[in-house]
Amino acid sequence: MTELKKEFTHKFFLTAGECNAELEMPVTLFVSRVIEISTMQANNLGIGYSRLIEDNTGWVLSRVTFEMKRYPTVNEEYTFTTWVESFNRHFSQRDMEVRDARGEVIGYVRTIWMIINFATREGVDLTKLNFNINYISTKECPIPMQPRQAPVNATRTAHYKFQYSDFDFNRHVNTVRYVELLLNQFPLEKYDEFMVNRLEMAFYKESRYGETASVLVDDSNPLDCRLSVDVDAVSHCRARFIFVPRK
Amino acid sequence: MTELKKEFTHKFFLTAGECNAELEMPVTLFVSRVIEISTMQANNLGIGYSRLIEDNTGWVLSRVTFEMKRYPTVNEEYTFTTWVESFNRHFSQRDMEVRDARGEVIGYVRTIWMIINFATREGVDLTKLNFNINYISTKECPIPMQPRQAPVNATRTAHYKFQYSDFDFNRHVNTVRYVELLLNQFPLEKYDEFMVNRLEMAFYKESRYGETASVLVDDSNPLDCRLSVDVDAVSHCRARFIFVPRK
Repeated sequence: MTELKKEFTHKFFLTAGECNAELEMPVTLFVSRVIEISTMQANNLGIGYSRLIEDNTGWVLSRVTFEMKRYPTVNEEYTFTTWVESFNRHFSQRDMEVRDARGEVIGYVRTIWMIINFATREGVDLTKLNFNINYISTKECPIPMQPRQAPVNATRTAHYKFQYSDFDFNRHVNTVRYVELLLNQFPLEKYDEFMVNRLEMAFYKESRYGETASVLVDDSNPLDCRLSVDVDAVSHCRARFIFVPRK
Repeated sequence: MTELKKEFTHKFFLTAGECNAELEMPVTLFVSRVIEISTMQANNLGIGYSRLIEDNTGWVLSRVTFEMKRYPTVNEEYTFTTWVESFNRHFSQRDMEVRDARGEVIGYVRTIWMIINFATREGVDLTKLNFNINYISTKECPIPMQPRQAPVNATRTAHYKFQYSDFDFNRHVNTVRYVELLLNQFPLEKYDEFMVNRLEMAFYKESRYGETASVLVDDSNPLDCRLSVDVDAVSHCRARFIFVPRK
């Protein structure tokens, strides 16, 4: 095991093959990295997959919020630094700072994680992990927390049937697949003109194999869009996309 | 730049969040790693993205074939080793060996790459790169080459409209998205019972934004399935999936 510090940093490299149509890091890959760096530090702190699976439990991402000034571009190195902001019975807040190849901060991330029991699918008391609170960091994450996501007044609705590749090891729809489904509600031209400056996502209920989702979109303000993924009129996930014009 | 050798090896780690429903490395991630390791060695050899983009050209995967005895499982380290088998005017053959955490070989990969000009979308003479043929390796790749993919006599056909997230920096449908589209033609239950033992994929024509594909499936032999992704009755990609029962 490597030396334990309150902040954990990992360097990545954005290959051409990973880029989106705008030659930058896709939002889907961004969220994958958020999960990856969280997993890495949790493993290092002894509260990772191996420890939790002993009790048939595991971490589940409940909310993610991020703000990016810009995204890494093709062939650029970038780093994610993560730390635990808080830890209580119900959830743990984990923040991240993203830096570009020159070491300049290009964005921040806030995440909220729960632990569920894989048999009951219910939340588990996090304090049972005996997490050492000395690892809680006071490093600042200067982006606003995610407010409650209100129900969406759809201006349009799409339908999507979940399929094999959408499911992860928990057998529920993978976070990254929700991100993808939401991104796909806007056309290529929109992303050419605008960048996702801030994204807020909240997950309420697991989606299962064979279910068909309704994707509600409120884009009455094209720069501040609200989305909801519903199954049988119950919201499984809600999101807010804030776009800014590209220079 | 690191020391140049004929074979290039990189170690990866399979996190829980990356796993498929069978708790192993998804075929989509496998193909991502194939592209990633290829990119890494090409960069090291000075024939990567940065060099090619000077001429407004880039590598395009034309065929991929792999055979896996098993896939890495959750929390397992694995390595990809890659080398150039051949290099001519029209294409380059690049092979790979995959080893598990204990160093045991669990699979092999064969790939065929072309270089296209991004303006004309046509193939470019690879010998213009002045690739040093001393880097060609004689290491063996003991899996059969991919035979020509015959047209598919569909037993069933699905339809899919390409969307924003399907497109890469070339603005054509990403290889990994084709893999996903093909995998999704079979239900979760199939993957619980069978493993993809061998996969052959050949790419013929780029798919563009807004196009709708027909996915032709011939699963008359459920252990040896043929698939084709067609747009306007022209095959853009063909594949063969060989399944073996899980133990």
